[in-house]
Amino acid sequence: MTDLTPILKPKSVVIIGASRTPGKVGHIILQNYLNEGYDGKIYLVNKNAEEILGIKSYKRVTDIKGGIDLAVIAIPAEGVPMVLEDCGKTKVKSAIVVSGGFAEVGNVDLQNQIVEIAKRYKIAMIGPNCLGVVDPRSRVNTLFLPSYKLSKPQVGGVSFVAQSGAVGSTVLDLIAGEGFGLSKFISYGNAEDLDEVDILEYLMNDPETKVIIMYIEGIKRGKEFIKLARKITKVKPVVVLKAGRTEAGSNAAHSHTAALAGSYEANEAVFQQFGFTIANDLSELLYYAKIFESEGAPKGNRIAIVTNGGGAGVLTTDAIASSRFIKLGEFSASTNSALQKTMPTLVNIRNPLDLAGDADDKRYGDALAALSSDPQIDMIIVIILFQTPGADSRLASEVVGLKENTDKPMIAISIGAEYTEMHKIMMERSGLPVYDSPRAAALALEALFRYYSYRNHKG
Amino acid sequence: MTDLTPILKPKSVVIIGASRTPGKVGHIILQNYLNEGYDGKIYLVNKNAEEILGIKSYKRVTDIKGGIDLAVIAIPAEGVPMVLEDCGKTKVKSAIVVSGGFAEVGNVDLQNQIVEIAKRYKIAMIGPNCLGVVDPRSRVNTLFLPSYKLSKPQVGGVSFVAQSGAVGSTVLDLIAGEGFGLSKFISYGNAEDLDEVDILEYLMNDPETKVIIMYIEGIKRGKEFIKLARKITKVKPVVVLKAGRTEAGSNAAHSHTAALAGSYEANEAVFQQFGFTIANDLSELLYYAKIFESEGAPKGNRIAIVTNGGGAGVLTTDAIASSRFIKLGEFSASTNSALQKTMPTLVNIRNPLDLAGDADDKRYGDALAALSSDPQIDMIIVIILFQTPGADSRLASEVVGLKENTDKPMIAISIGAEYTEMHKIMMERSGLPVYDSPRAAALALEALFRYYSYRNHKG
Repeated sequence: MTDLTPILKPKSVVIIGASRTPGKVGHIILQNYLNEGYDGKIYLVNKNAEEILGIKSYKRVTDIKGGIDLAVIAIPAEGVPMVLEDCGKTKVKSAIVVSGGFAEVGNVDLQNQIVEIAKRYKIAMIGPNCLGVVDPRSRVNTLFLPSYKLSKPQVGGVSFVAQSGAVGSTVLDLIAGEGFGLSKFISYGNAEDLDEVDILEYLMNDPETKVIIMYIEGIKRGKEFIKLARKITKVKPVVVLKAGRTEAGSNAAHSHTAALAGSYEANEAVFQQFGFTIANDLSELLYYAKIFESEGAPKGNRIAIVTNGGGAGVLTTDAIASSRFIKLGEFSASTNSALQKTMPTLVNIRNPLDLAGDADDKRYGDALAALSSDPQIDMIIVIILFQTPGADSRLASEVVGLKENTDKPMIAISIGAEYTEMHKIMMERSGLPVYDSPRAAALALEALFRYYSYRNHKG
Repeated sequence: MTDLTPILKPKSVVIIGASRTPGKVGHIILQNYLNEGYDGKIYLVNKNAEEILGIKSYKRVTDIKGGIDLAVIAIPAEGVPMVLEDCGKTKVKSAIVVSGGFAEVGNVDLQNQIVEIAKRYKIAMIGPNCLGVVDPRSRVNTLFLPSYKLSKPQVGGVSFVAQSGAVGSTVLDLIAGEGFGLSKFISYGNAEDLDEVDILEYLMNDPETKVIIMYIEGIKRGKEFIKLARKITKVKPVVVLKAGRTEAGSNAAHSHTAALAGSYEANEAVFQQFGFTIANDLSELLYYAKIFESEGAPKGNRIAIVTNGGGAGVLTTDAIASSRFIKLGEFSASTNSALQKTMPTLVNIRNPLDLAGDADDKRYGDALAALSSDPQIDMIIVIILFQTPGADSRLASEVVGLKENTDKPMIAISIGAEYTEMHKIMMERSGLPVYDSPRAAALALEALFRYYSYRNHKG
């Protein structure tokens, strides 16, 4: 197994192509290291500078004394072989080649040349033609994107592996708007040395990673991938968005990353067989990341719905009843009698449980307390429409508190603009995953149930 | 046809149950009228008050001299028959009964009684048990929800008809976060006098309404509905979200609004046959509202994709190729040669057209100019990932400008957090619909094509 630690947790890094010019890739990367508060040693290489942003700059890597874990290479393609040789001679452990201009534009020879150098010197290399990595714990960030364009994710348990740089940064930006956090982001581009198999293998054993989500256009080493696929989903959930599902999409993918997308059916069969969660678009990638980061195994597939909007309860019932894998549960006798005692008469005791538009923290609290201990209910959906009179921050706190005290998976649905968004973030950061549609919530619980069924029964 | 003008554009309104107590329904409604800047005459009825918020209050409606277009009734259910009698005697033209406590809680007799009164006096009545109406042009807003909980939609061409109050206010809140605007919102609750057939008939002839979106749980007058369905989609697009599609959902709907949801298949067959656009969840309701408010008939189903993110281009290709109704077009020879002249060599001239991560306003401008005049392209999707270096406000303006000068439907996909959101709003308010996923964009264009095919071929 290739150790990615020097790449993700480097004690020292050299930025080759560091630049004095704001806006240039080599400047943005250096700024990232400084802004994030990276506390390892930073070296710079730039032929024409003595120092950049107060840090001494060397002419060549070979001029640097002291071991280097990671080289970030951001110079024109033609120059990469030489500096990579220098890295090899200086015993640099790993490299991220962000530079483009290799196989993706037809320069196959140049690409082969750098792969040969990396292998000869045993440099673990990511790229070329990639965005590199983000690890908010080690404060490593090689993304050469203006920071104002990209919101910053929190620290968390989701690791995201992306073949495409642009999709990668887009999803990273989306993650920032969610209540869950990032463990690692790895954009691996042309994947000429380290590829998805190496990266997944590392993340499988990474204690900071609770769930892996990936965007891929093609798989290079099919056999090795299948071997790994067999093991990895026994350890943690893996969500995959495979682009190029259709013939037209597959052709487009080939033009994009020269990836042989392969038959989607064949790919999908492998993913299904080995318990991967398949996302059909970027939104689903996030739905699944969110549920797996937060929730553990449900005992079964029976769901209770609690709502302060009757219509939203009906739509959520439809979404669950449309699934082949999950269903609405029937409340146990003790739940029914507990609810009969605590609910006002206008509340019809049935699943979905419509608490009515004036439901407040007390009514939600009573209902959720009963359902949390119901042996016939395995998972709970709490719909809170914050437009209604009784829904406020106190209700949100009450639900979050109950969530902390139940071992059943519990998620919320809240739909709306500013006032809702504020409460959504508040609930998510307190550990309650919130979805913005019945469809999204049903997809998430279905995925949770299916993954843990696979893991428990095929273990 | 029932004229809803007195309800939506009343020259005078009486609020029965107007209250001095902040937070009470009768207070919130009065405040809405004042805050929105309603410029008709406002009368108040409250037995125990002389004046409320500076407006004189009457003991009974019969004490008021001067014609009244609309009575908004917000008093306990038992009192409604008497005040409705009073309204009849005073020749009030229409009424919105927001009060609950009728058929939905078993008080069928009381409900029958008020319907009889409304019919006897020819009062056009909406409700009972409803949120009422919003018309941003006439500044009428009977929603009794705290205004800080609900963002305010812009004025526009989308009319929204909702059986459920909570779903209604939730969608209204969502609309506020979008770049399109509202014509009318009508929440009609128990629908005992005016129902969906009356409301749709009015909106069909309403010049301020460009597209109708509706949330329904059941249809009461099947025959009349079908008769209207035959006509209405020849005039304007109608999008329908029918809750209770599954057996479980249908049972839940019955418990919610006492609606007989009917067989979903039967309903869906009617919707399909008469060219309704069927939404499967609340998000889709918005996708379709947005496209129909902004775009007209496409000439065909051939789509061009322009992108600054290769992966997003592949995902969008997949989404379109998965549709039975729309497809990627092939660029004409003249487009190919125009692009060969203007694009840098790294841009592969094919559909999807990947302009690369450094694409700026100039490159997008050249590409879109060529595609706008391509006779083999009917609709255009512009993907702008704002995380990339070349994407900024200038690019957004350039694309909006090109959109104004093409007669082909054109939409954008932009995915991301704050920086993206800002540009999304900017583009939408300038007339370019923006979607947040390839799936949403493909669904929207498919719906646009299908609707206009129906309308043109069955005309």
